[in-house]
Amino acid sequence: MDQLALMLDPALDQPLHRQLYAQLRAAILTGRLRPGQRLPATRGLAEQLGLARNTVARAYDDLLSEGYLEGRVGAGTFVSAALVGQAAREPAAAPWAPPLSPWAARALGGGAVTGVDLPAAPPFDFRPGTPDWEAFPRRIWWRLLGRRLRAGELGRYPDPAGYRALRAAIAAHLAASRAVLCQTEQVAIVNGTQQAIDLLARLLISPGDRVVVEEPGYPEARRVLSAYGASIVPVPVDGRGLSADLLPSEGGARLVYVTPSHQFPTGVTLSLDRRLRLLEWARRHDALVLEDDYDSEFRYAGRPVESLQGLDRAGRVVYLGTFSSVLFPPLRVGYVVLPAGLVEPFVAAKWLADRGTGALEQQALADFLVDGHFSRHLRRMRRLGRARRDALLASLRRHLGSAAAPPLAETGTHVLLPLRGVDESTALGEAARRGVGVYPVAPHYLAPASAPPGLLLGYASLSEAEIDEGVHRLGDALRAAAR
Amino acid sequence: MDQLALMLDPALDQPLHRQLYAQLRAAILTGRLRPGQRLPATRGLAEQLGLARNTVARAYDDLLSEGYLEGRVGAGTFVSAALVGQAAREPAAAPWAPPLSPWAARALGGGAVTGVDLPAAPPFDFRPGTPDWEAFPRRIWWRLLGRRLRAGELGRYPDPAGYRALRAAIAAHLAASRAVLCQTEQVAIVNGTQQAIDLLARLLISPGDRVVVEEPGYPEARRVLSAYGASIVPVPVDGRGLSADLLPSEGGARLVYVTPSHQFPTGVTLSLDRRLRLLEWARRHDALVLEDDYDSEFRYAGRPVESLQGLDRAGRVVYLGTFSSVLFPPLRVGYVVLPAGLVEPFVAAKWLADRGTGALEQQALADFLVDGHFSRHLRRMRRLGRARRDALLASLRRHLGSAAAPPLAETGTHVLLPLRGVDESTALGEAARRGVGVYPVAPHYLAPASAPPGLLLGYASLSEAEIDEGVHRLGDALRAAAR
Repeated sequence: MDQLALMLDPALDQPLHRQLYAQLRAAILTGRLRPGQRLPATRGLAEQLGLARNTVARAYDDLLSEGYLEGRVGAGTFVSAALVGQAAREPAAAPWAPPLSPWAARALGGGAVTGVDLPAAPPFDFRPGTPDWEAFPRRIWWRLLGRRLRAGELGRYPDPAGYRALRAAIAAHLAASRAVLCQTEQVAIVNGTQQAIDLLARLLISPGDRVVVEEPGYPEARRVLSAYGASIVPVPVDGRGLSADLLPSEGGARLVYVTPSHQFPTGVTLSLDRRLRLLEWARRHDALVLEDDYDSEFRYAGRPVESLQGLDRAGRVVYLGTFSSVLFPPLRVGYVVLPAGLVEPFVAAKWLADRGTGALEQQALADFLVDGHFSRHLRRMRRLGRARRDALLASLRRHLGSAAAPPLAETGTHVLLPLRGVDESTALGEAARRGVGVYPVAPHYLAPASAPPGLLLGYASLSEAEIDEGVHRLGDALRAAAR
Repeated sequence: MDQLALMLDPALDQPLHRQLYAQLRAAILTGRLRPGQRLPATRGLAEQLGLARNTVARAYDDLLSEGYLEGRVGAGTFVSAALVGQAAREPAAAPWAPPLSPWAARALGGGAVTGVDLPAAPPFDFRPGTPDWEAFPRRIWWRLLGRRLRAGELGRYPDPAGYRALRAAIAAHLAASRAVLCQTEQVAIVNGTQQAIDLLARLLISPGDRVVVEEPGYPEARRVLSAYGASIVPVPVDGRGLSADLLPSEGGARLVYVTPSHQFPTGVTLSLDRRLRLLEWARRHDALVLEDDYDSEFRYAGRPVESLQGLDRAGRVVYLGTFSSVLFPPLRVGYVVLPAGLVEPFVAAKWLADRGTGALEQQALADFLVDGHFSRHLRRMRRLGRARRDALLASLRRHLGSAAAPPLAETGTHVLLPLRGVDESTALGEAARRGVGVYPVAPHYLAPASAPPGLLLGYASLSEAEIDEGVHRLGDALRAAAR
């Protein structure tokens, strides 16, 4: 009966035996209890739920008298076999599905939405964008949560723009680390980058508007932009990032979505001349640039490149960042730096979307930044990131040899491994069979069929030993796939 | 310099003096440091920031040599007065505001969005929907957060449908307390009711679709539905709730948004015959009913009324609930019970909107329910709610006498106080002057001009003494307003 999650509440006006009656009846009608299934004895269930036996007996009696249960002498109490028809009929004979909107058709039309059905993680999971949860200073986080719970400024709805001290700390952090130029007022807190893109899309896109994306690029951004009716214009990415000279000169575009620091998924960095060309193009065509700086915290070689936002003098850049990828993914806190003219509409849209991000996490995060824990944690994550990147490159050389070209790995926490003479889905299957999770690059292309085969390997959450064993198995998988 | 929130990060590749340089430059360019403003002495700033004095001096030197600062002999270091033009010009000469989408025009067109600019709370704040934060068992909550942080299942992205154990606990709770009939799979977790309405609106509404709302009703729901292009059909509310016999017989509607347990804002309960009529109408017209059960946990008299969802046999009802209004508002966790055919599109929309609700809160909340803390807390909140409701009714009799009719107060945690011979906005102003926050009913009407004047008083977060003093002052305010 455990799976029934029976939960009785003495606080309710309804007596306990009626609550139990209602829950058992619901379990029968929804099919959680099957016709013919045996119920536990009243004594056992009473003990399990901490009830008087009489309470359980009354619930059973009511269900027996209404025909939901039947007793068999000497055998116990069972869900009535006569209910087979009823159980199937009752809640909603033919499950009714309402017709969906054009938004839904566009959003859900392109096949299954990734991420909705996350499979269990394989033993060696190279999932990109997953930081090392074991490295997160949980005790400190818990202490900060406790401090804010005690301080008790949680009685009212939060400011939909975000907790002010957190916004100020983010502005200062971005100025120092990314040369982002902004006032506290321009920073808004969201539940992660995905929400920022969603809110901007609905504020800015009219059906038919052209939107430039990187090819290949981040599929979830593309899907959200399409859902609001954008006409997607892919611009190819090469070794220096988005080909800014191929931006549409005729007709312009409403929006450009880019990942300049560490292009997703290829890992290249947008060159300075192209940055300037992109900004000039945006100014000329009155387009807004969405700069998604999703993992710029990690850089192992070369000079850090300033953010696009910091280079922009025309207020055409929206800067997106997240804490999920350095702290822990289910912490749904990200931020967006807006041109002054977009702040008010954005905050109103956020309010209408969900009234604001949870305040306790925001307050704890503000302390985490201001008290220096964030710096210390970043330092540690960078050290781990560098060691794991080195381990990955060494393991690739060791186990794959010339079967794969050495990937670009100067920044970020994942690499794109080009495949030679191996089919992507065969490789994925062989890897999965060996307990290795690697991720296909094809879905990142608007035209997957023309995509050069490749695998994405995130290495932030695996130890060096796990990386080596995982790559070892991947080598076996690729050799098997090549046959 | 405190307001500059300077934050230096030794973990960065950039040396500290360059970080300080970049932040001071940003402060100057964005106008946080004004031309002519004096900077602190290097020694003082170095001490304040815990830096070597030399580090600060190098940053100042660079800024001096680039003309951002100027030194005056014997007087110190100042932001260059010559930057007056530059500071105003640099970041974005004329702040550029991009043209907005039809969604934005519809969402933001109807005047300021409430809630975006929350004023400071007055001493006697009768804001509806605000539970008593002081009554929340923070130590228990903190302990549960700690338990889940230690258990450490937070390394991956959360399931966008929600944490399964929480969904099961909600299904069980709703079956027992609200006769809601559902499987765990039909429960999805959202960041509060507002997000549920937003996601459903985008999934279901095509521009021009008719949507029925209560008149008066919840303005934020109306605004979100309109933003997606719904044509709003108001149906009047009387003493038995939504006038189900006035539902449009011609043309039907796509969606009906209702608050049957405790109509917002009037406080009436939808009668059983109207419930059945509404469901029959929805079945006939293939309309979906959104049942917002926002504060059904509170009932002080009469028999609890079953949810609409529990009465429905055609799978036409979506049930919305929230934890914010019994726990604390900045806890952004709500839930929605969906007809089976809507689960998959809803979860995909949630994933595209923000990838899922924060997992730590969901896990702690699951424990809070399963371990019985929620029942105990509810019991306490109901006891408090009843005592405060009684106090409010007594204070209204004592201080207002016949100036106001006794309001309906059998359920929920707010009342609607009809006003006689007093203008609503004058009353609000007089109350505010006396430190009393009461809320106008007019914005809840689609046609505010024809609204009978009234005030909303939430009483859940005030002590009995505060209620009495608040109502005493409100009496003075109403007498002053009547003059």
